[in-house]
Amino acid sequence: MARVTPRILSGFIEFLPEDQIQFNKMFDTIRSVYESYGYAPIETPAIELGEVLLAKAGGETEKQIYKIAHADKDMALHFDLTVPLARYVAQHEGELVFPFRRYQMQKVWRGERSQAGRYKEFYQCDIDVVGSSNTLFDAELPAIISSIFRKLSIGSFAIRINNRKILQGYLEGIGAHHISTEVLRVIDKLDKVGESIVIEELIKLGVEADTCRGLLDFIAIDGSVDEVLDRLEALPTRNTLYRTGLEELTGVIGGVRQLGVPAEDYVIDLHIARGLDYYTGTVYETTLDDFPGVGSVCSGGRYDDLASNYTKSNLPGVGVSIGLTRLFTQLKEIGAIKAGARTLSKVVVLPLLPAAIPRSLEVASKLREAGVAVESYLDPGQPSKLMRYADRLGVPFAVVLGDDEILSGKLMLKDMQSGEQSSVTIEQAAKILAAKSS
Amino acid sequence: MARVTPRILSGFIEFLPEDQIQFNKMFDTIRSVYESYGYAPIETPAIELGEVLLAKAGGETEKQIYKIAHADKDMALHFDLTVPLARYVAQHEGELVFPFRRYQMQKVWRGERSQAGRYKEFYQCDIDVVGSSNTLFDAELPAIISSIFRKLSIGSFAIRINNRKILQGYLEGIGAHHISTEVLRVIDKLDKVGESIVIEELIKLGVEADTCRGLLDFIAIDGSVDEVLDRLEALPTRNTLYRTGLEELTGVIGGVRQLGVPAEDYVIDLHIARGLDYYTGTVYETTLDDFPGVGSVCSGGRYDDLASNYTKSNLPGVGVSIGLTRLFTQLKEIGAIKAGARTLSKVVVLPLLPAAIPRSLEVASKLREAGVAVESYLDPGQPSKLMRYADRLGVPFAVVLGDDEILSGKLMLKDMQSGEQSSVTIEQAAKILAAKSS
Repeated sequence: MARVTPRILSGFIEFLPEDQIQFNKMFDTIRSVYESYGYAPIETPAIELGEVLLAKAGGETEKQIYKIAHADKDMALHFDLTVPLARYVAQHEGELVFPFRRYQMQKVWRGERSQAGRYKEFYQCDIDVVGSSNTLFDAELPAIISSIFRKLSIGSFAIRINNRKILQGYLEGIGAHHISTEVLRVIDKLDKVGESIVIEELIKLGVEADTCRGLLDFIAIDGSVDEVLDRLEALPTRNTLYRTGLEELTGVIGGVRQLGVPAEDYVIDLHIARGLDYYTGTVYETTLDDFPGVGSVCSGGRYDDLASNYTKSNLPGVGVSIGLTRLFTQLKEIGAIKAGARTLSKVVVLPLLPAAIPRSLEVASKLREAGVAVESYLDPGQPSKLMRYADRLGVPFAVVLGDDEILSGKLMLKDMQSGEQSSVTIEQAAKILAAKSS
Repeated sequence: MARVTPRILSGFIEFLPEDQIQFNKMFDTIRSVYESYGYAPIETPAIELGEVLLAKAGGETEKQIYKIAHADKDMALHFDLTVPLARYVAQHEGELVFPFRRYQMQKVWRGERSQAGRYKEFYQCDIDVVGSSNTLFDAELPAIISSIFRKLSIGSFAIRINNRKILQGYLEGIGAHHISTEVLRVIDKLDKVGESIVIEELIKLGVEADTCRGLLDFIAIDGSVDEVLDRLEALPTRNTLYRTGLEELTGVIGGVRQLGVPAEDYVIDLHIARGLDYYTGTVYETTLDDFPGVGSVCSGGRYDDLASNYTKSNLPGVGVSIGLTRLFTQLKEIGAIKAGARTLSKVVVLPLLPAAIPRSLEVASKLREAGVAVESYLDPGQPSKLMRYADRLGVPFAVVLGDDEILSGKLMLKDMQSGEQSSVTIEQAAKILAAKSS
């Protein structure tokens, strides 16, 4: 028989069960925090009309999009969850309650050239609040991010908060607003290319040398959030946009504090600008202190108008996104996530002989009724063979059933890690295992 | 500005939050039962090489497949989860522990003509045990199906179990094995077209009238599982395949019993044949007693060799699949699933005036710490406006914070359904709400 070599496409990824289990755990953590803040789930079709997906997008997106070759319909796979959200909100406007808090955790597809840590198919975990200009929502998002990254237990992190109006207002104040887009783009590269190249490029844009220095000193302002806010307040600029941005940022920081976010979890970072034509106010990036090379693991910001391509209603909002596939694979690669068990079972029930099978099935059922995840091994055999199976699986406990146990009605419960064994009743076993479940 | 009408493709579906919440609940129930039996999660890329996906498939599948028009690669969306499982197991054979219990719950895509209740994008929830011929695994699947459908609370159901060897052996016994495929295909239609048309078609196939009658009487055998097994046992046929099938079926029923599956949840149904060239032993279908029109909601069976297109290793196994999108939408349509709340929050915190906002954020945080899903309303206003919001959301409780509450340090907790209000401390509120969480 002609066989096909089993393989997946380059730039795509799939996990072995032991990694999938850890991936799902992170996914569930994110989801449960989103839900604890009252965000409702939605899910949109992976395939949309090309016309809908590309209503706004420019050349780059169009090149990356996966089109479907089917019938005469213009169809493609979504490349993010923001465009589908805009379409969804416009389409179902009359049926939703605003402000609309939604989360959406789905795969998206981008046919870009493969790079380390980037995949062509990956999960995005988005939350947005749509239909409100109230910047208190901008304070809720850092609280959510903080809660998630604390629960993920991948060390300390910094939620970097800024407001684009501040930088834009500052540029207006120094008469550089006509080139603000270009200036922001140059500044965005500061961390990568260094100060001297940035100054060179700013001068090329027509910014005077003195002004360059002032600008760089401005965005270098750092310290505690109160120090930064004080220094921004103390600057002489009277530019309205600047003052509005500062007022918003002060309000957001106040809200973050009232929501009880630990002070060490967030900073004001005047470098953060984010995608230049979409965000209009608060912007966020999140970095992991122990893994700076991973880059921003949760980014987003406030926008003035989500769905203008699909509806005349003005829908302002704010949102962030976690690129989970990239986060997980990078953490995995640098050893921050250790391989775990190949199973979610807490225990495997091992019958030593065929006569022990009925009892083993009964034991498995009873333990399951007590809320324990149980796997039944169904091919009786030598203890060594059965133990090797339990070992390879990485299951925390094994129940062994042989002649003795059938006679006594008790179970031999073995802690696979310590090797400790004890003869217990089903009820005792259920108690021990349920305690280990958490 | 030229606007695009916001819409999705015909044959696709998406839900409003209130339905998505219910859908996810069903999804989570299925997943948690799969996990409680020790099935490990895997997820495969939605896009695979065309060559891999179509290694086995014939003409029908090829017509339904969504091909990707991108670069010069031959890529397509998977149309089921069985082909990806076969590829996965063949590819990662050396890294998996066998017997390999896996679950996989993903969207699949089929560009077939739209029909009522059928979608072009839908969830399949599959479990399989790969790498064992032990028919005790065939007994585990009905236990899992029973547990799932009991938890889904959509009324009583029947897991219909059969073994294809019995019918094939019977046909061999009456000398009709050379046309057994055709005969099975005709018999498969019995419920739809009725007895007289089936007899007509069987006679056309060359089956004698007497034999037809015998065959129809044979598959009409019903009663309790013991009665059916007794009658099958008592038949005079000595055909080896028949006897093997009967022995397997008897073993499976014994295992189902030992696993404690309630007797009312399963039957032996000799009509069930399933896809004619794939399954080789035990086969399953599951019907809902209250909603027979929905058809089989969970089907599957045992196969001799999963991955022969990709590996020379022989990998027998057994599996079932739940078509969740179809199940959910049909139950929804016939009113078996009622619309619920638009939120997963247990409570919304409503500040009556701006001065109450700091306190409202603090209350929300504390309730969240106590494990309660909480939504903060952030635009203070008239009680009537705030209550209308809570009403539309369908949230079970509201906390109202006005001047009195700020002074007293207490909360006004309102049960949105009964209208009952009480003045409580945060701790009391947390207790009441946590009790309602389950």
